[in-house]
Amino acid sequence: MANIAKKVSWSGRGDDRGERTPLLNGDEEVKYNRQVPDTLDYDNSENQLFLEEERRMSHMGFRCLEIRRWVICGLIGFLTGLIACMIDIAVEKLAGYKYFAVKLNIEKYTELGGLSISLILWAVLNSAFVMFGAIAVAFVEPIAAGSGIPQIKCFLNGVKIPRVVRLKTLVIKVFGVICSVAGGLAVGKEGPMIHSGAVVAAGVSQGRSTSLKKDFKIFEYFRRDTEKRDFVSAGAAAGVSAAFGAPVGGVLFSLEEGASFWNQMLTWRIFFASMVSTFTLNFFLSIYHGKPGELSSPGLINFGRFDSDIVQYNLYEIPLFIIMGALGGVLGALFNIINYWLTIFRIRYIHRPCLQVMEAMLVAAVTATVSFAMIYFSNDCQPLGQDNTEEYPLQLFCADGEYNSMATAFFNTPERSVRSLFHNPPGTYNPVTLGVFTLAYFFLAVWTYGLTVSAGVFIPSLLIGAAWGRLFGILLCIVLLTCAAAQLGGIVRMTLSLTVILVEATGNVTYGFPIMLVLMTAKIVGDYFIEGLYDIHIKLQSVPFLHWDAPPTSHWLTAREVMSSPVTCLNRVEKVGRIVDVLSNTSTIHNGFPVVAHTSENDEPGIICGLILRSQLIVLLKHKVFVERASSRLSQRKLQLKDFRDAYPRFPPIQSIHVSQDERECMMDLTEFMNPTPYTVPQETSLPRVFKLFRALGLRHLVVVDNENRVVGLVTRKDLARYHVGKDGLEELHLAQT
Amino acid sequence: MANIAKKVSWSGRGDDRGERTPLLNGDEEVKYNRQVPDTLDYDNSENQLFLEEERRMSHMGFRCLEIRRWVICGLIGFLTGLIACMIDIAVEKLAGYKYFAVKLNIEKYTELGGLSISLILWAVLNSAFVMFGAIAVAFVEPIAAGSGIPQIKCFLNGVKIPRVVRLKTLVIKVFGVICSVAGGLAVGKEGPMIHSGAVVAAGVSQGRSTSLKKDFKIFEYFRRDTEKRDFVSAGAAAGVSAAFGAPVGGVLFSLEEGASFWNQMLTWRIFFASMVSTFTLNFFLSIYHGKPGELSSPGLINFGRFDSDIVQYNLYEIPLFIIMGALGGVLGALFNIINYWLTIFRIRYIHRPCLQVMEAMLVAAVTATVSFAMIYFSNDCQPLGQDNTEEYPLQLFCADGEYNSMATAFFNTPERSVRSLFHNPPGTYNPVTLGVFTLAYFFLAVWTYGLTVSAGVFIPSLLIGAAWGRLFGILLCIVLLTCAAAQLGGIVRMTLSLTVILVEATGNVTYGFPIMLVLMTAKIVGDYFIEGLYDIHIKLQSVPFLHWDAPPTSHWLTAREVMSSPVTCLNRVEKVGRIVDVLSNTSTIHNGFPVVAHTSENDEPGIICGLILRSQLIVLLKHKVFVERASSRLSQRKLQLKDFRDAYPRFPPIQSIHVSQDERECMMDLTEFMNPTPYTVPQETSLPRVFKLFRALGLRHLVVVDNENRVVGLVTRKDLARYHVGKDGLEELHLAQT
Repeated sequence: MANIAKKVSWSGRGDDRGERTPLLNGDEEVKYNRQVPDTLDYDNSENQLFLEEERRMSHMGFRCLEIRRWVICGLIGFLTGLIACMIDIAVEKLAGYKYFAVKLNIEKYTELGGLSISLILWAVLNSAFVMFGAIAVAFVEPIAAGSGIPQIKCFLNGVKIPRVVRLKTLVIKVFGVICSVAGGLAVGKEGPMIHSGAVVAAGVSQGRSTSLKKDFKIFEYFRRDTEKRDFVSAGAAAGVSAAFGAPVGGVLFSLEEGASFWNQMLTWRIFFASMVSTFTLNFFLSIYHGKPGELSSPGLINFGRFDSDIVQYNLYEIPLFIIMGALGGVLGALFNIINYWLTIFRIRYIHRPCLQVMEAMLVAAVTATVSFAMIYFSNDCQPLGQDNTEEYPLQLFCADGEYNSMATAFFNTPERSVRSLFHNPPGTYNPVTLGVFTLAYFFLAVWTYGLTVSAGVFIPSLLIGAAWGRLFGILLCIVLLTCAAAQLGGIVRMTLSLTVILVEATGNVTYGFPIMLVLMTAKIVGDYFIEGLYDIHIKLQSVPFLHWDAPPTSHWLTAREVMSSPVTCLNRVEKVGRIVDVLSNTSTIHNGFPVVAHTSENDEPGIICGLILRSQLIVLLKHKVFVERASSRLSQRKLQLKDFRDAYPRFPPIQSIHVSQDERECMMDLTEFMNPTPYTVPQETSLPRVFKLFRALGLRHLVVVDNENRVVGLVTRKDLARYHVGKDGLEELHLAQT
Repeated sequence: MANIAKKVSWSGRGDDRGERTPLLNGDEEVKYNRQVPDTLDYDNSENQLFLEEERRMSHMGFRCLEIRRWVICGLIGFLTGLIACMIDIAVEKLAGYKYFAVKLNIEKYTELGGLSISLILWAVLNSAFVMFGAIAVAFVEPIAAGSGIPQIKCFLNGVKIPRVVRLKTLVIKVFGVICSVAGGLAVGKEGPMIHSGAVVAAGVSQGRSTSLKKDFKIFEYFRRDTEKRDFVSAGAAAGVSAAFGAPVGGVLFSLEEGASFWNQMLTWRIFFASMVSTFTLNFFLSIYHGKPGELSSPGLINFGRFDSDIVQYNLYEIPLFIIMGALGGVLGALFNIINYWLTIFRIRYIHRPCLQVMEAMLVAAVTATVSFAMIYFSNDCQPLGQDNTEEYPLQLFCADGEYNSMATAFFNTPERSVRSLFHNPPGTYNPVTLGVFTLAYFFLAVWTYGLTVSAGVFIPSLLIGAAWGRLFGILLCIVLLTCAAAQLGGIVRMTLSLTVILVEATGNVTYGFPIMLVLMTAKIVGDYFIEGLYDIHIKLQSVPFLHWDAPPTSHWLTAREVMSSPVTCLNRVEKVGRIVDVLSNTSTIHNGFPVVAHTSENDEPGIICGLILRSQLIVLLKHKVFVERASSRLSQRKLQLKDFRDAYPRFPPIQSIHVSQDERECMMDLTEFMNPTPYTVPQETSLPRVFKLFRALGLRHLVVVDNENRVVGLVTRKDLARYHVGKDGLEELHLAQT
């Protein structure tokens, strides 16, 4: 019964592959009763080992570390750019072969009159591509599904989604996104780039791959959550940068989603990674296109050239922008609501990998059919010019020397379709056909997001926006762009970063004001109905995601009410047996344990003197760092920080560590390994104050103490995440207990 | 002896105007022994009054507050844009009259042969303008001198520079900057806009002006440091946005300098203020230029149109960018070093307002002379075309129908000169003249920055960069732009925000990569020699400015070593006499006092139970919130949060409050007013950890406690600011004791 949703969309199939039973209950909403994902520790454990290492390090040593950080960021940017380039070329080649084959077939059957055969060919080709992608995702690495943006948001927020930054995930993601875009689904290849960049960053910065069992013995210093997060921020930024040619937008994305603490050097490094990434992509694409050194395509997406003379907007156009923003907000909310119900349906009924693959193939076939119908029923012909830029002009029923103009938009990858919608001359599309298309594509896109394929939602959103923009008779490409922005903003609800991303993607700063205006309106209007798409999916996983601030009306809640209590505390010198028992206790899986000076017999709480993590205890147990009872000689093996770093991040479970009965009687001295100065708050601290501390410092555990510094409780991320503002004021969510 | 530097450049003339004796001592460096400016409290004091108010507030109430915040940000943007517009028009008009008069005079005397009279006229006009500006700054409000960027950096960092955000400062600043730009100094009007925006924000958000003694009784909720800082961030961003037409750059500037904690809604509001500001400026300028609604000049600065076809850069140009960046770094460092010595000279010898005004007038006259010489010795004539865009073509010794091309660059405001340097055709300038000019202008600009006039350093830096770029035979305007960027970056060392500002000012995203490259190189090279200009000036004031991180090698320092001790603690119920004595003690001016459960007689520290601020105590004393000793009836007047807000931010000094001998025997109950949950750390906490807490939460006081929660010390901002990395590792600065 447990773990349904988690398995289906994110972490997928662990050891319990066969147990995927549908979760049926009578409630209105699906209740998720499952393990909460682990959390990350962005507050450094400053134990004695760490402090000693830092003290030994010279000023020069810190400078070398800094240089190494820059090198890593450069590498992250380079590899992310390379991956983006690979995806782009692969998609172009595969889609090219596909459209070439279908075009030949159509040309053949236009004369003969058996166009349904062409349709079937198209649909089968699409389904085949999608099948490969879906099989890889569903059977090999389910976490590679979707755009990966919600997962990266969670990671940067401090929630550890299992396997989200592994090499295998990256491979499946890249393969999956190539298949789904080549398979003609209503998806983009931009969102997955963000996830890819993050995986690259997590891999490169650790200097090893646990999947490949290869340790390069470099960058060992960076094997901890704090450093890793910084690099993952850079990777995500590099991904955005490669996807949209938007280095500044990438930095802002990372900051908006992840970095709660802004640091100038870090930001500058992230920017460097972004710049290198877009530069690498640009450079290799220029070689591929046979014009080496001509750096003209900074991102995967290309909106085409906007003539800068018609960019100028006038004062009276501002209400128009606001109206479009509102419309985008409403349509985006509609998109999100339908997708929400669909996702719940999927969680309940479509959780077997086979079913998931079949659904994806069905969507692929339907998408081909809709596109085919669009082209078939359009009878708008344009003359074939010499400077024809169309790659696959379809003649169909047009006279010789002419081609079907509708095909320029829909016999193409979604990105090229967006460009056609922006730039095609007035009168290209029949309003009725366009209306039908907008509607059909809207529902196709809703249906597609959440399929078990790697795919992004940016491009389809832009396409829908541009389509309804054109439907309303808007032909100026700057205004069409704002329509597209409105639709995208209504769905994802990103703010500053999205503005900058779109401005950078178009290459013209003048669009800033209208884009900001529509995005702001879309967000305000959309938020009235439902949250953004990513937030919905994060919420459906019920992970302990921390928002920016505590709910405004939560001042009356104090740490006393919020904290978990009683807390399992350990003594400074603790019996091995007790530690093993505490760690093995499956009913209460704690990850951090306050260390107290002494726990007295009469259950009185002890005075706090440190905090130790489960992962640290496991390493200690594994290395058998025991002091024999009643033995004065120092039998304790000297453990080094290196031992902890080697075990990071995949610490073995407690069950895998064998502790003999004799050893259980030994003692363990935690003094050297615990964090001697954990952050503490008194019991009367208000929730917003606790929240601010958590968010600003990236905490995982916060010890609540009484007046005499005795441990009375422990606040963890999930204690804070369960409060949110609902319709009737403050509500408490039912997050699963770990 | 005390207060020299502070008086001279920043806070100026208090009551002790006559005491400005030069500070002469035998040390290599000037030592500043003076009062440290007050600090701001960005950690909210969550006392009972505050919590009660928050609890009373409904969800709707919070929403109204949020809407009010948006309205204020809109107002800030609007007013900042309006001020920018006013400055622009005033400068254009005044400079126009001046150049017109000089041109007529030159034309007259070119024939007659008495051009020295023209030179004298020009120099006198310049000096006159500058005199008015300098008198206003030197005698009325010295803090309005310079660009104001270091002061705003300090404010956002948490250092309270006196009178920095007052209305009077704004008026003098605006008047001063008009005078200095119209007076032909080597200054820009962009930097002061940032200060102006910040003052507007601080004024509008408080809903009153203490200078004008006008209280609009609105926005009372925002009368505290936390809220005010957020608005000042928005104001600074709006200022950048108006100055450079760079709304995103403005947001990044504010974040880079100020906001240690990134909040999505706050960022979005700041962006809104920026957008409104550039839009307002644009709109009013379009009306002024007679083309209402044509929004084509987003900022004060205008680099002219860059043809987008020649924007493309090639791979082999990258080493060129790096070389230029390095050169910019070296020249920028040279600029900073000379300016540093000059500033020290000024602090020692030029501290009387009269001298300051005279120096400013001298510089104005010299600037005019240099420009005149440039034009006089150039004999490069260009034909007057029909599409002539020059406003004041000087014929001088050219044939009829021709004009002196050197005058297009130097018979003009610095901004127009930058544009001429970027866009004038090859061969316009004689290399020797250009070389002499570059050198002369470099030293003029160094000399000018730090004068007692309101003036920015952005434009002169860009001008110097463009000049040496042209000198090296670079003619492509994109490359010239990067030269200019390199010089500017070498001087101010801003990173991401400057990149974005310059990209937005040119209007073309493609410049991003080269600009980033040169700025990064310039920063790395420049930092090797000396800090950035703003940091130098901040350091010369020895204010407790907190950088991003603790010095890297400071892990061996603990809170125990860093903290101030012993601490003056107050009891929960304290005798009025003692409070008055503590506050009146001039030898140790503390601003925050831990409140303890009981201070025992034998000097044993008490258990912490709260923290109360000097300002709160003063309000309590002023309202005589006393409990009569041995009296059970509640004579304590019910004080409200409103009383504290009314007193904010100019709390009266303790000397102004009269407490009678009888009242001294009364008691004061602090329970309701103290912050009951101040942040505390144990004594063993390392400096980086304390630093992170301070920086992330914007703290002013951090209580250090022992194992039993007894107060043993207090860490304040200056305890942290005094450690920095010098040549031989960690050094301790001698900051004055407050």
